[in-house]
Amino acid sequence: MTKKTNRRILLAARPDGAPKDSDFKLEEVAVPTPGSGSVLLRTIYLSLDPYMRGRMNATKSYAASVEIGAVMTAGAVSHVVESKHPDFAVGDLVFGQQGWQDYALSDGKGLRKLDPAKAPISTALGILGMPGLTAYTGLRNIGQPKAGETLVVAAASGAVGSAVGQIGKIKGCRVVGVVGSPDKRDFVRDELGFDDCLIHRDADFAEKLAKACPKGVDVYWENVGGAVFEAVLPLFNPFARIPVCGLIAQYNATGLPAAPNKVPMLMRSVLTNRLRIQGFIVWDYAAQEPEFQDEMSAWIREGRVA
Amino acid sequence: MTKKTNRRILLAARPDGAPKDSDFKLEEVAVPTPGSGSVLLRTIYLSLDPYMRGRMNATKSYAASVEIGAVMTAGAVSHVVESKHPDFAVGDLVFGQQGWQDYALSDGKGLRKLDPAKAPISTALGILGMPGLTAYTGLRNIGQPKAGETLVVAAASGAVGSAVGQIGKIKGCRVVGVVGSPDKRDFVRDELGFDDCLIHRDADFAEKLAKACPKGVDVYWENVGGAVFEAVLPLFNPFARIPVCGLIAQYNATGLPAAPNKVPMLMRSVLTNRLRIQGFIVWDYAAQEPEFQDEMSAWIREGRVA
Repeated sequence: MTKKTNRRILLAARPDGAPKDSDFKLEEVAVPTPGSGSVLLRTIYLSLDPYMRGRMNATKSYAASVEIGAVMTAGAVSHVVESKHPDFAVGDLVFGQQGWQDYALSDGKGLRKLDPAKAPISTALGILGMPGLTAYTGLRNIGQPKAGETLVVAAASGAVGSAVGQIGKIKGCRVVGVVGSPDKRDFVRDELGFDDCLIHRDADFAEKLAKACPKGVDVYWENVGGAVFEAVLPLFNPFARIPVCGLIAQYNATGLPAAPNKVPMLMRSVLTNRLRIQGFIVWDYAAQEPEFQDEMSAWIREGRVA
Repeated sequence: MTKKTNRRILLAARPDGAPKDSDFKLEEVAVPTPGSGSVLLRTIYLSLDPYMRGRMNATKSYAASVEIGAVMTAGAVSHVVESKHPDFAVGDLVFGQQGWQDYALSDGKGLRKLDPAKAPISTALGILGMPGLTAYTGLRNIGQPKAGETLVVAAASGAVGSAVGQIGKIKGCRVVGVVGSPDKRDFVRDELGFDDCLIHRDADFAEKLAKACPKGVDVYWENVGGAVFEAVLPLFNPFARIPVCGLIAQYNATGLPAAPNKVPMLMRSVLTNRLRIQGFIVWDYAAQEPEFQDEMSAWIREGRVA
């Protein structure tokens, strides 16, 4: 690999609805040179996560927007190709927020060294990274799955959903995934070991979901919003918990959906079933990262999560 | 008072929408005679609570429906007028579920003796009874108000809402009530000591609410549902808590309201603000009744709640 240009993807415009190619710009610039106290990083793995859709908007959310003309933010696994920083050597493997680009400079803040002997380095963007921590802390603090309960996981083939379901199995739950296509279903059911997995695009999805949850639903992991949530709503058992982690079905919405207004139906179920619906952001539970790393690494070594 | 007839109010039909007179029947029957092990009770105070609307329906809820032709259920304060029960003497004052009638028989189960020297006996239906316990446990377990936070209370002049707001003041919150009429507002603001109180029927209610909550809303006590909830929704601070105690605005509804469907807007706020919305029924926390009686009695003696 010759160090010639740095390809980087900038946010060119704020998407209106679903992002289009023209909302981004591929730019080729010279690879930067690290000054004293910094390192030059070459990207090996980039992450592409649902939260990024929110960062493309100017609207207030839990994190700052990406500025127009700036490199899209993203976690990345990189190796150090030049170092003028005492803590990093050429060849070190690191995780950090390098963004969507081939090369990035860093002053070392927020960089975490990775040990490839411990786990594949790509897991720093998945099961041992932010998505895994999201699954672990959302279940531990809000979902609180118990043996014998039924856990339904939206977006079950994604980085977060796949971790949620696998933790649910370890906790002794019946785990039912919901995905958008047959190949994702096969992966979730056959490779991840969920008890069942359904496709939300099926015309009879709500009926299939009810059949797949004969004892009702005790924990619903909300990643999606919209129609999937509305299909789960009639199935909740008393004292069910709903960690709200994401709403990807809504992220591209430009207005509210048509009638009727189902807030009263939702609130009635909250009241009569004593539901707990609680939103969270992974960094709310940053203090639990060490326990997460220990427990999840052990589960990986034991072959209980993939 | 001559013991001649027992007037009792039966549920004659299941209301469709708002209850009508014809959904009830006033019946006069002979006053019953207690057998061995039971007492005859004469009603002094009857309660009329929002939960009763749900009991008039056949639909599944957290408590059994009242059967057609049966006496409407209600808590009541009574005195013992005849006793063939070793634990109760004529003249004893008791609280129990005597229903909407002048006289009732009881085998003593669920009867609680009242001491008029401790507190006015009517408080057994209010601040020291089920409504007070509802307020106390819902705030303690879900609302968790902290000094300096803003607490908004729907149905603020009601038995539950008035207790919620007074406890909120004790905890050091700014307390804003919401009611349906000027006389209720004056009562809540001038007699109960809430910081402010608004009338949800005002055309500019949402603007007034925003002005009354300059630091946003940290706890919203949901008793009402519908338009009040939707006016509070844009004001929530991060990590706000919403104990869902009742939805009186919906109890007479026969269908879902018109467009748009605001569930996505609600869920977006749940996610970005990490809201906790949680339904509860007072009996979920029955085990906390002794602490409630101790603490609330002390507050009454100290003149901190009325």
